[in-house]
Amino acid sequence: MSKVRFEISMSLDGYVAGPDQSEHDPLGKGGEALHDWAIELEAWRKSHGHPGGEVNESTAVMEEQLDNIGAGLMGRKMFGPPGGGDWGEPPWNGWWGDDPPFHVPVFVITHHKREPLTLSDTTFTFVTDGIESALEQAREAAGERDVKLSGGADVANQCLAAGLVDEVELHVVPLLLGGGERLLDDVRDLELEQIRAIEAPGVTHLKYRVVK
Amino acid sequence: MSKVRFEISMSLDGYVAGPDQSEHDPLGKGGEALHDWAIELEAWRKSHGHPGGEVNESTAVMEEQLDNIGAGLMGRKMFGPPGGGDWGEPPWNGWWGDDPPFHVPVFVITHHKREPLTLSDTTFTFVTDGIESALEQAREAAGERDVKLSGGADVANQCLAAGLVDEVELHVVPLLLGGGERLLDDVRDLELEQIRAIEAPGVTHLKYRVVK
Repeated sequence: MSKVRFEISMSLDGYVAGPDQSEHDPLGKGGEALHDWAIELEAWRKSHGHPGGEVNESTAVMEEQLDNIGAGLMGRKMFGPPGGGDWGEPPWNGWWGDDPPFHVPVFVITHHKREPLTLSDTTFTFVTDGIESALEQAREAAGERDVKLSGGADVANQCLAAGLVDEVELHVVPLLLGGGERLLDDVRDLELEQIRAIEAPGVTHLKYRVVK
Repeated sequence: MSKVRFEISMSLDGYVAGPDQSEHDPLGKGGEALHDWAIELEAWRKSHGHPGGEVNESTAVMEEQLDNIGAGLMGRKMFGPPGGGDWGEPPWNGWWGDDPPFHVPVFVITHHKREPLTLSDTTFTFVTDGIESALEQAREAAGERDVKLSGGADVANQCLAAGLVDEVELHVVPLLLGGGERLLDDVRDLELEQIRAIEAPGVTHLKYRVVK
C-alpha cells in the first residue's frame, strides 16, 4: 500500500523556519541555511533543472526522497503567501516559479478557496475542507505511489498528531535558529521507531517509522 | 588544553526531561525512557557497579564520554530536589546514592549554600556565585583532563548561550515527550560544526564542535 512520507530540514533546536518570517523572507532569519546541504547536491539541482553540484552521503537520501512519489501535500504557507485579500489580482502563483519542482499533483491545505492552478507539469489543488480530505485526494492521485507531505510546521504537526503519517525523515542541520516555526510542537502519543541515521556533510538524516 | 564537554539524552522534540517533574519523578512523564539506550549497555552498567549488559554501536560513544573526565558540572535539579527549607534535616544527599557514578569532583550550581558533601569517591561542591565561577573551579579540579557538563536543561542552556562549552553530544532518542525541560531553548548565536553521527539501537549520537 502506498505510504504517507514526511521529510523536512530542521535545525538542531527544532525549527523548520527561523524567526521574523515575511512575504519577502519566507524562511525567516537564518532559515535559508537549513537547505544548504540540499541545494549543493547534484541530485537536487537536477530535479530543479540546474546543472552541476556535489555527490556525497546525502545523494542516496535525496534520490530516495524523490523516488516513487505520486502526489504532494503541503500547507498554504509553503505554497506561497496569502497575497492581498482573496489571493490578490493578478493571482499570486506561489513561491515555486513557472516550473515547480514537484512534477506531480500537489494538494494545498488552505482556508482560501481557489481554482486549481497548473504550472508546467504541476497542478496545485486548493483544499479547504481539512487535512483528512486533502490527504484522501492526494492518496487517490498518487495511486500505487506514495504521498509526500511537506511543511510548514503547522500542517506537518497536525498530520503527525492525527497519526496520518507513515514515515518521517528529518534532515538535522547544526544550526540554532532560536525561534520560528517549531516542528513536533505539542505532538505526543506518537510512537516512532528509528529506521536509520546517515551522517553527511553539514547534516544528519534521521529516518523513523510511525508505529501504528 | 582541557575541554568543556556537554552530553545529554534528548527526545526528538527537544526535551531532556518530560512534563510534570516532581521529587518522586525527576525525569517527568515518559522521561525515563530517554536513558534506556544507556542503561542497557555493559559500559554504563560497569561504570555504575552492575554486571552484564549489551555491547553495540553505543559502546564506543559511552566509553569516550567516560574517558578523560577530571571534573563534573551540573545544576541543582540534577544533583537532587531542594528538600525542605535549607536542604531539610537530615540533609538530602541527592539522587545518586551512597556511591555516585562520577568518581571525580562535581560542582553543583545552586542558590543554596551548603558544605561540600563526600559520598564514596565523589565530592559535591555547591557553588552559589554563578556558572562562570563553578566552571573555573571545575577546570582547576580537572587539571589537564576535561570538564563534563551535565544537565539540567537550564544550566546547560545558560552555559551554551554564554559560549562556555567546547563540545556537544546529543543522544537523540525517538521519543516525543510533548513538554518538560527543553534543551537549546533560546540558545542562539552559537555556531556548531558537525563532528560525527553514529546510529545505534534506539538512539543516534550527534556530536558537534562549538566554533569560537
